[in-house]
Amino acid sequence: MADDNTNRFVAGLRPKSKIWIEIDGEVVFGGGRMALFEAIDRYGSIRQAALNLGMSYRAAWGKIKATEQRLGFELVEKHAGGSQSGAVLTPEAREMLVLYHKFKEDSVKAVDNLFVSYFNKFMNT
Amino acid sequence: MADDNTNRFVAGLRPKSKIWIEIDGEVVFGGGRMALFEAIDRYGSIRQAALNLGMSYRAAWGKIKATEQRLGFELVEKHAGGSQSGAVLTPEAREMLVLYHKFKEDSVKAVDNLFVSYFNKFMNT
Repeated sequence: MADDNTNRFVAGLRPKSKIWIEIDGEVVFGGGRMALFEAIDRYGSIRQAALNLGMSYRAAWGKIKATEQRLGFELVEKHAGGSQSGAVLTPEAREMLVLYHKFKEDSVKAVDNLFVSYFNKFMNT
Repeated sequence: MADDNTNRFVAGLRPKSKIWIEIDGEVVFGGGRMALFEAIDRYGSIRQAALNLGMSYRAAWGKIKATEQRLGFELVEKHAGGSQSGAVLTPEAREMLVLYHKFKEDSVKAVDNLFVSYFNKFMNT
């Protein structure tokens, strides 16, 4: 799951892209994981985040742990017990989220602009 | 099927991308179709191209016709009869192939560079 660019048209043609980040051939950041981290941030709860995305707690937790293991640092901190229970993103997770969004946004724009620069010319001949 | 970028590393992290072109939500250019058109160009035969890519003649022909219909012009010309039989790409198909390759290559480079500019900084903190 990844965003794609849909804001440019050249005679009906439009570029599409999927962009994600891997370590050793395994996804660490993509649309799906970003949605999970953002939902954890929003709900302050892995369980609520998972529910909202239609996935099991177990699956969500598995993705978080796998991503943390691949990156080598924590992304989500769990707080157990009473009214304080819940989960929060670590500062590293927050910074990665921000960088990932900027990277994705700029990448889509770059692909879009390159597409127009090449195919606009073709469509006009 | 689409190429992806694998030439940059930032502490094990690397960007991956798939880039293709659509008209009205339908693929017109992507890795799979490009491979088919290139094979037709190489073998001068739709049948040989399909065989080489492990697809049926019918499937290959379907993809060609669908792409032509979406673009509104011919991409492959069939020549029937004796030693002259075979298939050749039209000049429009050839130009589209060249543009598509340049577009893909530049897009992968752009994504790569953006990734490094954002994540290199993060990995150094």
